[in-house]
Amino acid sequence: MSIQRPFATQIDLRTGLMSAYERHFLRHSGDMAGYYRAEPQADDLLIYEYFEREVPAEQGEIVQNITILHPGTIDGEYYMTKGHYHANGCCSEVYLCLRGRGTLLMQTRDGETDAQEYRPGASIYVPPGGAHRSVNTGDEPLVLFALYPADSGHDYGSIAEEGFWARVIRGADGQPTLVPRD
Amino acid sequence: MSIQRPFATQIDLRTGLMSAYERHFLRHSGDMAGYYRAEPQADDLLIYEYFEREVPAEQGEIVQNITILHPGTIDGEYYMTKGHYHANGCCSEVYLCLRGRGTLLMQTRDGETDAQEYRPGASIYVPPGGAHRSVNTGDEPLVLFALYPADSGHDYGSIAEEGFWARVIRGADGQPTLVPRD
Repeated sequence: MSIQRPFATQIDLRTGLMSAYERHFLRHSGDMAGYYRAEPQADDLLIYEYFEREVPAEQGEIVQNITILHPGTIDGEYYMTKGHYHANGCCSEVYLCLRGRGTLLMQTRDGETDAQEYRPGASIYVPPGGAHRSVNTGDEPLVLFALYPADSGHDYGSIAEEGFWARVIRGADGQPTLVPRD
Repeated sequence: MSIQRPFATQIDLRTGLMSAYERHFLRHSGDMAGYYRAEPQADDLLIYEYFEREVPAEQGEIVQNITILHPGTIDGEYYMTKGHYHANGCCSEVYLCLRGRGTLLMQTRDGETDAQEYRPGASIYVPPGGAHRSVNTGDEPLVLFALYPADSGHDYGSIAEEGFWARVIRGADGQPTLVPRD
């Protein structure tokens, strides 16, 4: 404990609000050009918010963060995060859903795919090498507490180029449906 | 995701019960001879239960687990876990309290000490090198969701020999009090 003191963060287990954080960003529709099938009607739609407790980016350290992914669609495609690979291919991640409903899409660089369901209390393990994107298919915020090794790094570029294997859209029956990427 | 598929675990956010786990053990008073100031009145008092989702013990993997630490005292000393160092000194841990009240005691091999308070929503970061023990100071189960690097390893022996820097006892006013180790 000489490098860094212990610390406590108070997290509202319903809303996900953290009592302290070092990193925070918002993603609006305008930050996600090209991610959705359709062009958003406006650039200032708030898609998600991210809060992180920073620790040294070293092996053995664990980063805690909260994502609040708002409900909504862009032309029937549910609000989602950008999604990324970890630059360090041996790094996993765990997502604990505190509130809401949704889908966690995963894929590997060699073409394996998976989808898991978020609901309150669902703890989803993303294996090393798995790109991951969260999608809010409910009508309230999807609140996720996630933890990943601090030396994971992030590769957003691959996903920005190649996209995910499926899109999650509101089907004709009003229910979430996975459709193959165009 | 070639080594290991993604998986989801349903966790009851109130009771901590997991829908699936690969490791499970119980700790009774008889398993903790010498840990408390006083000898327990019986060997079969259930102190805590542990549930773990197993992943490969490799760098970058993260282990999820739940500890249910029951309420009670042994001659005024609150029920607690054995506590341990990580054998791999660079490995941290994060404890998210889902229910209950308590104390997380920490110390390093070179004499640094710390204590943090558990209450619902408290997420406590244990830095690399920090031995850690949880203590239930409330009157209901203390439920903890914890995550640590899978290559952490565990050193229980050092704590079994040296103990922690403080004990948590019920004071004359009925409130939890930290007293220096005898």
